[in-house]
Amino acid sequence: MERVLSSELPAHVGERVKLAGWLHHQRQMRSFIFVVMRDRAGLAQVVVEGPPMGEVAGFLPETVLEVEGRVVPSAQAPGGIEVVEPSFRVLSAPTGLPAVELFRPSLKEQLPTILDNASIALRHPRQRAAFSIAAASAAGFRSTLDDLGFTEIHTPKLVGTATESGANVFQLDYFGRPAYLAQSPQFYKQMLVGVFERVYEVGPVFRAEPHDTVRHLAEYTSLDAEMGFIEDHHTVMAVAREAVAGMSTAITERAGPAAALLGLTPPHVPEVIPEVDFTEAQTMIEAATGERVLGELDLAPAHERWLGDWALHTHGSDFLFVTGYPMAKRPFYTHPDPTRPSVSNSFDLLFRGLELMTGGQRLHRYEDYIAALAERQQATEPLETYLQAFRAGMPPHGGFAIGLERWTARVTGAANIRETTLFPRDLNRLAP
Amino acid sequence: MERVLSSELPAHVGERVKLAGWLHHQRQMRSFIFVVMRDRAGLAQVVVEGPPMGEVAGFLPETVLEVEGRVVPSAQAPGGIEVVEPSFRVLSAPTGLPAVELFRPSLKEQLPTILDNASIALRHPRQRAAFSIAAASAAGFRSTLDDLGFTEIHTPKLVGTATESGANVFQLDYFGRPAYLAQSPQFYKQMLVGVFERVYEVGPVFRAEPHDTVRHLAEYTSLDAEMGFIEDHHTVMAVAREAVAGMSTAITERAGPAAALLGLTPPHVPEVIPEVDFTEAQTMIEAATGERVLGELDLAPAHERWLGDWALHTHGSDFLFVTGYPMAKRPFYTHPDPTRPSVSNSFDLLFRGLELMTGGQRLHRYEDYIAALAERQQATEPLETYLQAFRAGMPPHGGFAIGLERWTARVTGAANIRETTLFPRDLNRLAP
Repeated sequence: MERVLSSELPAHVGERVKLAGWLHHQRQMRSFIFVVMRDRAGLAQVVVEGPPMGEVAGFLPETVLEVEGRVVPSAQAPGGIEVVEPSFRVLSAPTGLPAVELFRPSLKEQLPTILDNASIALRHPRQRAAFSIAAASAAGFRSTLDDLGFTEIHTPKLVGTATESGANVFQLDYFGRPAYLAQSPQFYKQMLVGVFERVYEVGPVFRAEPHDTVRHLAEYTSLDAEMGFIEDHHTVMAVAREAVAGMSTAITERAGPAAALLGLTPPHVPEVIPEVDFTEAQTMIEAATGERVLGELDLAPAHERWLGDWALHTHGSDFLFVTGYPMAKRPFYTHPDPTRPSVSNSFDLLFRGLELMTGGQRLHRYEDYIAALAERQQATEPLETYLQAFRAGMPPHGGFAIGLERWTARVTGAANIRETTLFPRDLNRLAP
Repeated sequence: MERVLSSELPAHVGERVKLAGWLHHQRQMRSFIFVVMRDRAGLAQVVVEGPPMGEVAGFLPETVLEVEGRVVPSAQAPGGIEVVEPSFRVLSAPTGLPAVELFRPSLKEQLPTILDNASIALRHPRQRAAFSIAAASAAGFRSTLDDLGFTEIHTPKLVGTATESGANVFQLDYFGRPAYLAQSPQFYKQMLVGVFERVYEVGPVFRAEPHDTVRHLAEYTSLDAEMGFIEDHHTVMAVAREAVAGMSTAITERAGPAAALLGLTPPHVPEVIPEVDFTEAQTMIEAATGERVLGELDLAPAHERWLGDWALHTHGSDFLFVTGYPMAKRPFYTHPDPTRPSVSNSFDLLFRGLELMTGGQRLHRYEDYIAALAERQQATEPLETYLQAFRAGMPPHGGFAIGLERWTARVTGAANIRETTLFPRDLNRLAP
């Protein structure tokens, strides 16, 4: 008999079917047992009566089972359906009780216990739902950019030169030489604009983050895009808007049950995301709060939250582009505003008052790179193979990056980014 | 005026259009200049006559240009179309002649020069075509497995325990502790079968390969899949066949122009890929060649080639599954054939006589892991968080892995795997 999934039971009312999965929970009643089976699609209730009760009562939680039985409607059962007259076949028995109790509607364990026992805790339907949403989001990112003529790339994670500044980089021995783990695909995606014009990558990036916070990871998944022949950063922002809208739509289309389980509605992305200038934002914040913020080079988290509220109330938008950041706080490859050299052609995208994405226009002329590096007293020699691309003719270009785990945390309302990372890596955690 | 791509010119005959791209080549004739423009879609011929000839003659190869002109049919032009009466706008000028001559039908430089100057060499239409085929293949892998109910995962590349044996692993300092770069997502994809039943990952893997060959890289992109509730390795092989067929179809559907440029036909994947038992294969090879091979624990490359020829002549197939490999040469997590304990439930997939994929059924019972590790005198303690999953109930499961660069090399006929890796990493190469 072909296996059916729990979600397929409504199509088989009156038939005998075979389910397979894990014994999620069992409740002993006087004359029968409710067995809840879990498979990749969800849960199914099985009613055990008579002689098999003795055998079933001995099954430990997480026993891997095949169940054959008849599908019947049942007003009391979750989903209005249950399986009766079951026979069981044990595929695999656990060695004892699981370290995490999976039967509750939500896990009651603390986060460290959940993370220490990730391969078990992730089995809980609510825990795994976040990762269905992450997978759908990544698929939406890719399909949106595919449709816009982008090419998927895979760039090296072992690099000879740290991408960003020297701090926060993992170093290793590479056949007798020092190598680093890529902090981003920044240099490579720019070089490949010279090849494919439009590129994206979904892959790991590494930060030796010495801070143990709810927002930082030593390894995360970056959704990176870069494109050539732009007017300025607004061309990039328009594509970034499409990418985020595609991610949100994909949650509905590809992870509907997971979204329903978590009771969440994928965010609405306006056709045109409102935009505010950095200095105007500071002026508004000063006027509203009385705080002195004008002249500061970046927005504090509290100010981003204020702007998030402002965008929601003024524009009805969960999203807000902030543009016009000072050049001083942006990396050396950032393109300035041609009319205001101390201001960058870059942007952050705030989502519900939290930074979700950073992007901007990059320098594209070789001589501008030489000047920018000289001004920052940074040597050109370690960047030789990067600068090679600019010596050979590069179009005006720009791009952006989104942290997949951060996006998923925002969408699901997770308080700690570790809840949206399968096996998080931080200052203290290298296992499982 | 909106930019059009070179591939869109046929739809604009008689109109004035704007192209943007790189000056790929120019040929000076007596009274005009042929300018070949390159963009992400291909090449376009522009005819320059009269006064602009002086300016255009001064453009270096790889100058980034916008060209406005009128599209006309032309029997002599490549593609039957050309752009006349052009005006040019320089977006970015190179600093000199490129280190690689891009105008030839194929690059004439040696591979080390090509790799040293990758950001330029990859701009050649034939060079970049291989990566369009790689991107299409990865997309085909993902969409096929999506349709079969698989969930995309992102597992850590920084790990506390080396996945395979101790050799060939990169080690680094992780906040004062040793960590390793993942040689494969093997342990994690198995653990996640307990969560999602069916998972796949497209991501980098790392091997500290001390061999400088045409087949080995220190970092490559692995297409990994793992699935639960299987009968045995044949269930896995059926899905692996679908994945490879989906990859081949995606080349046609998503990278048609690249395939045409390289003159290749995506491989035909039979509905059922022929299968041969390891010992039977050795017997055939002995009978045909006179070589003593029975009793050897693996197939030599020459024997894989012999089997590739045999599959083509006997079954008309580019693909051949070899099953029944001795347990002795397979990793500790391999499931034995229940009827022949020294033989594994594993497989290799040969493509045109070369190993493309390895896979098989894995152990799923905790006690089988303990026994297998004891037999190999391997400690269980470093594997504690992996074994955790098996203590908690795991279904019969298995999976497979394909190297994306190796697949692309086979499909395109590249002699060296570095030709299908954007920025290869090997014993000697860490840049660009």
